[in-house]
Amino acid sequence: MQADAMVLLDGVNVDVPPSWIRPGAAIICCEPTLETGIPEYIPNLLSVAYFLCFISDIEISRAQTPKPVTQLAEEIGLLPEELEAYGRNKAKVRLSLLDRLHSQPDGKYVLVAGITPTPLGEGKSTVTIGLVQAMSAHLKHNSFACLRQPSQGPTFGVKGGAAGGGYAQVIPMEEFNLHLTGDIHAITAANNLVAAAIDARMLHEATQSDKALFNRLVPSVNGVRSFSPIQISRLRRLGIFKTDPAALSMQEISTFVRLDLDPSKITWQRVVDTNDRFLRKITVGQASTEKGQIRETGFDIAVASEIMAILALADSLEDMKNRLARMVVGTSRSGQPVTAEDLGVSGALAVLMKDAIKPTLMQTLEGSPVFVHAGPFANIAHGNSSVLADKLALKLVGRDGFVVTEAGFGADIGMEKFFNIKCRASGLRPNVVVLVATVRALKMHGGGPNNLSLVAGGCRSNLKKQIQIAHLFGVPVVVALNVFKTDTQAEIDLVCQIAKECGASDAVPCHHWAQGGRGSVELAKAVDEAANRPSNFQFLYNTEVMEKIRTIARKVYGADDVELSPEAKSKIDYYNQQGYGSLPICMAKTHLSLSHMPEKKGAPTGFVLPIRDVRASVGAGFIYPLVGTMSTMPGLPTRPCFYDIDLDPVTEEITGLF
Amino acid sequence: MQADAMVLLDGVNVDVPPSWIRPGAAIICCEPTLETGIPEYIPNLLSVAYFLCFISDIEISRAQTPKPVTQLAEEIGLLPEELEAYGRNKAKVRLSLLDRLHSQPDGKYVLVAGITPTPLGEGKSTVTIGLVQAMSAHLKHNSFACLRQPSQGPTFGVKGGAAGGGYAQVIPMEEFNLHLTGDIHAITAANNLVAAAIDARMLHEATQSDKALFNRLVPSVNGVRSFSPIQISRLRRLGIFKTDPAALSMQEISTFVRLDLDPSKITWQRVVDTNDRFLRKITVGQASTEKGQIRETGFDIAVASEIMAILALADSLEDMKNRLARMVVGTSRSGQPVTAEDLGVSGALAVLMKDAIKPTLMQTLEGSPVFVHAGPFANIAHGNSSVLADKLALKLVGRDGFVVTEAGFGADIGMEKFFNIKCRASGLRPNVVVLVATVRALKMHGGGPNNLSLVAGGCRSNLKKQIQIAHLFGVPVVVALNVFKTDTQAEIDLVCQIAKECGASDAVPCHHWAQGGRGSVELAKAVDEAANRPSNFQFLYNTEVMEKIRTIARKVYGADDVELSPEAKSKIDYYNQQGYGSLPICMAKTHLSLSHMPEKKGAPTGFVLPIRDVRASVGAGFIYPLVGTMSTMPGLPTRPCFYDIDLDPVTEEITGLF
Repeated sequence: MQADAMVLLDGVNVDVPPSWIRPGAAIICCEPTLETGIPEYIPNLLSVAYFLCFISDIEISRAQTPKPVTQLAEEIGLLPEELEAYGRNKAKVRLSLLDRLHSQPDGKYVLVAGITPTPLGEGKSTVTIGLVQAMSAHLKHNSFACLRQPSQGPTFGVKGGAAGGGYAQVIPMEEFNLHLTGDIHAITAANNLVAAAIDARMLHEATQSDKALFNRLVPSVNGVRSFSPIQISRLRRLGIFKTDPAALSMQEISTFVRLDLDPSKITWQRVVDTNDRFLRKITVGQASTEKGQIRETGFDIAVASEIMAILALADSLEDMKNRLARMVVGTSRSGQPVTAEDLGVSGALAVLMKDAIKPTLMQTLEGSPVFVHAGPFANIAHGNSSVLADKLALKLVGRDGFVVTEAGFGADIGMEKFFNIKCRASGLRPNVVVLVATVRALKMHGGGPNNLSLVAGGCRSNLKKQIQIAHLFGVPVVVALNVFKTDTQAEIDLVCQIAKECGASDAVPCHHWAQGGRGSVELAKAVDEAANRPSNFQFLYNTEVMEKIRTIARKVYGADDVELSPEAKSKIDYYNQQGYGSLPICMAKTHLSLSHMPEKKGAPTGFVLPIRDVRASVGAGFIYPLVGTMSTMPGLPTRPCFYDIDLDPVTEEITGLF
Repeated sequence: MQADAMVLLDGVNVDVPPSWIRPGAAIICCEPTLETGIPEYIPNLLSVAYFLCFISDIEISRAQTPKPVTQLAEEIGLLPEELEAYGRNKAKVRLSLLDRLHSQPDGKYVLVAGITPTPLGEGKSTVTIGLVQAMSAHLKHNSFACLRQPSQGPTFGVKGGAAGGGYAQVIPMEEFNLHLTGDIHAITAANNLVAAAIDARMLHEATQSDKALFNRLVPSVNGVRSFSPIQISRLRRLGIFKTDPAALSMQEISTFVRLDLDPSKITWQRVVDTNDRFLRKITVGQASTEKGQIRETGFDIAVASEIMAILALADSLEDMKNRLARMVVGTSRSGQPVTAEDLGVSGALAVLMKDAIKPTLMQTLEGSPVFVHAGPFANIAHGNSSVLADKLALKLVGRDGFVVTEAGFGADIGMEKFFNIKCRASGLRPNVVVLVATVRALKMHGGGPNNLSLVAGGCRSNLKKQIQIAHLFGVPVVVALNVFKTDTQAEIDLVCQIAKECGASDAVPCHHWAQGGRGSVELAKAVDEAANRPSNFQFLYNTEVMEKIRTIARKVYGADDVELSPEAKSKIDYYNQQGYGSLPICMAKTHLSLSHMPEKKGAPTGFVLPIRDVRASVGAGFIYPLVGTMSTMPGLPTRPCFYDIDLDPVTEEITGLF
């Protein structure tokens, strides 16, 4: 739930006893109709018990019994053998579906992005879900929402559950938020197997001769010594084309057995899906069994793993496996990149990830289908749900259908990466961008003397700039104003008017949070209309690293230029030399401003973007310049969400997950 | 697969090309019958393609298509609403089944234990599966196997997959070995949330005043300040019976907000399900954001978590929740135990574990039902599968049925803990112990001048002693000799003869590995017979801590006495003072000898058992004295199993998982 998304519907004030008030509860007070006691805009599927009282997201979620996922699957045209149920409310969908629907035309592809947000977010997930609910139930279009799987860390930390909110949710929200079908756990297992392999290998290399290493790495089994396929791959990369272990020279043996990792140049971190700030910087290897091979390293939150970015970008099992093999974990003392395949671990990684690659099917509160799949960070990675989920959904909805997918943070970050990284990987072409704005965020960006001037200021700076960014890529924009109870009609009208002046195809207020799909019908109509206009999609760049960075900084962020640290410069040289220069760029920048300065709102100009360092996720397939410091491990506050999270052991109901 | 379980069936030697030989493959060479080309003892469900060649466990597993888990569930009498399918081959079973079958009498309860093993293990899992296959398919008794879930760490390390082996396997073995239904991942998440909460809390206490802590822990929401239920529990434990935050005195506020954990007395470790030796001893908190609050700690392998032991011992959701709340994570500076509930995290732990508590239903190669559930360490914990799986299975098989459950390590460890800890927690009473022996291990224990004398020596020392241990508890013993191809008929006959002389109800050779259930029919008959004899089960002790330790050391291990370190003595005093004195004892001892000295085989006497330290798992509900050093984090060898593990991206078949 959005912490501040508390609404008094229809302006009816009801006195409520203080005992009803508790953290995380959404207030929905409404006037009963005479007939049923239930206002018509509360979907009739909700029980009367939840009426006229405090309804939290989890209560709304629980009040609706999801249809069995097998029924949902049948409705959307899946064959029984294409489904792997996980309990009765969620299922993985097999990739064989892509082959079966190969000749089916794709549906319309809609991206939901946002203006530069407040720290609380402006409701892109709820807009996505509301839009799909409106498209499905009200406009009778086949449609699908594609969402990211949330990290479990924030669920128990500051944020609470994330599954949309109000009447625009994925249900059951507790399954969405907890474990789901185990994809993030699989990523954690795979990521940490790589880490264990790195440190163990360094220890073994430090304590064994070339001969001993070779005898162990290529053991004689029943008198026969042979390379495993993964070892033959490494030999080929080293330029050794022999397949008989006995034929290797001592020099070749040494080259083969020694990865010779430079401990100071290991870029691979361990991960946990927990907000554990004390793991940000640690020293490992302090037990006597590790013989003094201590080193400093750290843990990231699991969704920051490169393996998550790979899951999101892979377009087949084979592609995922190849990307996993290419991941660079560090550099040898002679400056060569060392990959997961060099460690001999990439086959095992593919095995650990073989189920994670299948998207998970769930449903919205109104029964529309949702794919939940992947959730890479939106700063050090590209912040979009998976290519495979989008592809499957586009086939399933068919030519006249709609797939609505969401990008993280503001359009300058999530949308730019959606276009330049995700669409480049997938080959898919978007038809419409829905740009989510709130009056609250627009006021933050504005600069006027009163409320309306503030709103107008925000529209004419940040909103306008974000619309222009979408137009850089040739895609039409519909602005969705996510309406809060505190917004006045004058403010709403002003935003819609200016948005259209700034080039949006349309701009409409949305009431999905309180009303579900019914509250997004106007948005759905506007999207339908825009999707039928010509889209002239184009990438922003096809050039070398430095120029790509400069293009994004200037055209997207509005910077005058970029300034690189000496370290950043030498990294770019190194990446070019290693042949990574053609990879797209994934900027790691604050999401709270178009610039690198979080406090600069609106559409800043006259600044030079500093690039502190440049890194690469070679397996995922992007280079990420660091603009400032990005935290990849959140912490727990003094009173984390977990204080309120509980389970009734009799009813098995969860409380406090918002 | 057991690394040395390679057999040439029927002694038919076949010349095989060297290319067929690869690590991890089991050799099954056999003579075709004239009619079908398939020897009759290879179950006809295997395809011809797997005949007369090297068959690894995973190939045997894959050659058999499991029946849909929904069909299996129907066969064993589950209602559709009691099943939560996870894909088509495995499902979680809801605990509501226990209520429905409340008045159903339990079946016979059979424990599979072993003599003191060689480092490779003697095949308890295969005996368990073979016995259930024989009981089901050949003796037509309802029967169920209850197995532990294997840790993923060793799967990629030294051991490879573990799902039984040969024709006594759980299938599909890759699902058994990888992720399963996510229980170990849930344990990891829960365990590490506790760890993150500990360090974050220490940081917040170190950097905030009582008042600031109180304002954050009990925030004012819309002007109202209230305790959460978990905070009220803590207040009660502190002897403060107020419920209005405003009514607390400053002293009470200070007592409430400060757990005052002593950093040097934190016993809670983080966990990963990866063999990551570099995490054995680490320093955390080295980032500047943690303000110098560094401390030394470490990671254990996930199955060593106390939460795993709790999962295995809980007999309901409520019991699990209460045990999670009672877990002691460390001691305050004033010497008071600090629990998970004090940290405010126990409700969240129950939420994370709500699905893990449901046992996972799978099947053997011959289609008999198997519950896979929990897998606590057999040294620092009790090494048995879950109480709930056994209880559900006993109801499902009914009065005339059999549930075969397995205990880790030798009978002196796994069986003793099964009786004294697991049966105490569950209230269940065993009918028969099946004691697994191999000629190989018996020779290791023997002391004679030739093979037969070695075998006889092993029987008259270790086997005899282990039989006597079972008899201490009043339970009849059937010895199962797990036959290997290298065993002679004279050796087999000798073992069976001496075992009976030593008091076993019966002793029979078993051929389940090569023949499946057909190879265990004699064992099944012997167990059936023994189960109908009177069992006079009794606990070994009901006394205070020191006496419990002494009783186990003398009566089970054969020690003259115990010798406690000063630290061990003071810990026992502390635990007595804290009221933990009534908890059962879980000895942490080497499994390679009845004594504490791994090299002492047979049945050592004349030794004094040294107790180095004593620890407590208060939530799981046992005290564990440390006899020597137990590693709780395995390492990776120079060439880990993962080198051979691979996935064919087209067929999705896994290779190299043994």
